Amino acid sequence: MSAKGQGKVLALSGGVGGAKLALGLSKCLSPKQLTIVANTADDFEHLGLSISPDLDTVMYTLADLSNKELGWGLAGESWNTMSALEKLGGETWFRLGDRDLATHLERTQRLKSGQSLTEVTSCLCDKLGVEHPVIPMTNDPVRTRVKTHQGELAFQEYFVREQCQPEVTGFYFDGLKQAKANPLLEQALSDTELGAIIICPSNPFVSVAPIIDLPGMREAIKASSAPVIAISPIVAGIAIKGPTAKMMKELDMPSTALSVAEYYGDLLDGFVLDNSDQELQSELQDQGLSVLTTATIMKGLQDRINLAEDVLAFATDLTRHQLEGSA
Amino acid sequence: MSAKGQGKVLALSGGVGGAKLALGLSKCLSPKQLTIVANTADDFEHLGLSISPDLDTVMYTLADLSNKELGWGLAGESWNTMSALEKLGGETWFRLGDRDLATHLERTQRLKSGQSLTEVTSCLCDKLGVEHPVIPMTNDPVRTRVKTHQGELAFQEYFVREQCQPEVTGFYFDGLKQAKANPLLEQALSDTELGAIIICPSNPFVSVAPIIDLPGMREAIKASSAPVIAISPIVAGIAIKGPTAKMMKELDMPSTALSVAEYYGDLLDGFVLDNSDQELQSELQDQGLSVLTTATIMKGLQDRINLAEDVLAFATDLTRHQLEGSA
Repeated sequence: MSAKGQGKVLALSGGVGGAKLALGLSKCLSPKQLTIVANTADDFEHLGLSISPDLDTVMYTLADLSNKELGWGLAGESWNTMSALEKLGGETWFRLGDRDLATHLERTQRLKSGQSLTEVTSCLCDKLGVEHPVIPMTNDPVRTRVKTHQGELAFQEYFVREQCQPEVTGFYFDGLKQAKANPLLEQALSDTELGAIIICPSNPFVSVAPIIDLPGMREAIKASSAPVIAISPIVAGIAIKGPTAKMMKELDMPSTALSVAEYYGDLLDGFVLDNSDQELQSELQDQGLSVLTTATIMKGLQDRINLAEDVLAFATDLTRHQLEGSA
Repeated sequence: MSAKGQGKVLALSGGVGGAKLALGLSKCLSPKQLTIVANTADDFEHLGLSISPDLDTVMYTLADLSNKELGWGLAGESWNTMSALEKLGGETWFRLGDRDLATHLERTQRLKSGQSLTEVTSCLCDKLGVEHPVIPMTNDPVRTRVKTHQGELAFQEYFVREQCQPEVTGFYFDGLKQAKANPLLEQALSDTELGAIIICPSNPFVSVAPIIDLPGMREAIKASSAPVIAISPIVAGIAIKGPTAKMMKELDMPSTALSVAEYYGDLLDGFVLDNSDQELQSELQDQGLSVLTTATIMKGLQDRINLAEDVLAFATDLTRHQLEGSA
C-alpha cells in the first residue's frame, strides 16, 4: 500500500520533535487520513492567559509559521510587549512574542465564553490555514508537576523558568485521573479504518505519558487493530531536542532508545531507530518488537517527509504481517 | 504668590485634553504640591484585560511616552498583536498597541492579585518614572453607559467602536452611587493646604461628571476653601478634542463655553476662556463668575506650561480676593 492508499493515522505528539513528524505526515496524508493529538499537560495559565505550548507548536508548525531558530513560537516574531512588561516589573521569564500573544488572548477569550479547548483549537487552526485536525488530548485541565530535588515545580517553571536545571525525581499529572480523553481521540482510536497509531519522537515522560495515561487510553490503544509505532526521541544516547536524556539519567535510566522502547512496553508493535543506533536493532527484535532503522533526524522539510513516508510504509508492513499471521 | 509658592493643587482630568494641562501643572508644581485624579468611568474589560484609558493617557503623558499623533496610546508603538489577532478573527476594534498591552496585562494581573486600582496605578507610574501622584477617582468599578437613538452602549463601544456616530440622548454611570471616592482624593480635598481645585479641559459630561458626581464629592468640593476653576474644553464653539461639542448639540445645549460653565454651575469660583471666546467674558462675569481669558489651546509643551502658570496665577488671585473679601 502506498502512503496515498494508507488507512487513517493517529499521531500522538508533544512539542517540537513531535510537530516535525506531524508536519511530515501532513504532507503525506489528507486531512481526512490524519489526526494529530497533542499533549496539553504542559498547558498553563500565565499573565491571565491560557497557554497551550504543545498545541501551539503543532499548529504553528503545520501552518508553516513556526520559529525554526527558537524552536518555539512564531517566525519573524517581535517582543515589544515583553520589553514593555519588563520595564513595568512584570513576569517575563516565559517569553511571549507579540504575535503569539494574540493566540493566547483569543484562546483565553474563547475558553471564557464557554468553548472547549477542542473547539478553540479548531477555530485557531482554521484561521491559520491548518487543514489537518489538531486536537488536544483532553478538554479538561491536566497539569504536569515535576518533582525535583529542589521541590515540586509546575512544568513550565521547571522547563522554561529553571531551564530544566533542577534534578528530576519524578512527575505526576494533576487532573489526569479525572480527565476525559477527547471524544475525537476516542473516535479516531475506534475508527475501523485506523491504519496506524504513531507515537512521535517527543519526550516519553512529559509529552507522551499524559496522553497514553488518560483514563481508558492504554486499553483503547491496545484494543485497536492498528499497529502502534514509536519513533525514538533519543538518538545515539542524546535527545534531539529538550531534556529527555537528562531526565533519563536523573531517573536512573540509561539514556538510550532501548529505554524508550521499554518505557512504552507492550503498547508498541513497532519501533523506529535512527541509523546511528543500528546496533540496538537486534536487541529490540529479541524483545519481540518490529524495528525500522532509518534516518530520524529531521533537519529540513524533506527529512520530515522522508521519515513520515518511512514510518507509514513500516506501518503498512506491520499490518500486512499481522494479516498474514492471522490468515 | 508665585507658582513655586502655590499651595497644593488638585486637578480633575479625563483623557487627552485634561492630560495636557496636567502635564503643564506637573512642570510648575512639585509631586507634593499636585495630585491628579483621573476619571475611571470609561474603564472597561476587553480581551480579558482591565483597561483604564484616561488613567493611562494621564500616566503616559506625564511619563512623556504618549503618542501625540494618535492622541492615545504610546509613542513609537507597534501593532503586531492586533494584526495577528485580526487574522485569528479576534476583536480588534479597540486598538491595543504591543507596548500598551503590557500595561493592561500587568494591571489585570495586579488587580486579580488583590491590589486596588490606586496601588496598581502607583506601581505603574513608579516604573514609568511618573513622580506626581496620579490616582483613579475610585477603586470601585464605575462604567459610563451612553444612551443613544440606537440604544444603550458601553462608553468604549460608543466612543471607539461606533466612533461617536450614534446620537446621544443621555448618560448614566453604572456603579457610581455605590462607589466610594478614592480616599486619597478625599484627603486631597480636605487638605488645609489645598490652594486650587482645577477642572481640566476635559469632556464635562463623560470625563468630569463621574468624578464630581461621586457620593459626597460635590459637597467636599464646595466645602473646600480652595477656589474651583474650570478650563473650557469648548473654544469658539468647537471641542479641541473629542465629541464634547457634538454631544452638546445632541443634548440641545448650545455648544459654547457658556454652556460648560452653566453645566458646572455653583461648583465654580473661576472659569478660564480662550482668547477667541473673549466676548463671553462679561456674560459669565454677570453670572458672578471670575473669568480668566487666555490662550487655552495647548499645541506644544510650552503652551501647556503657559496655561498651567496662568491658571495657577488665577487661582492665587481668586484666593487673595476671597481673603480680602472676608477680611
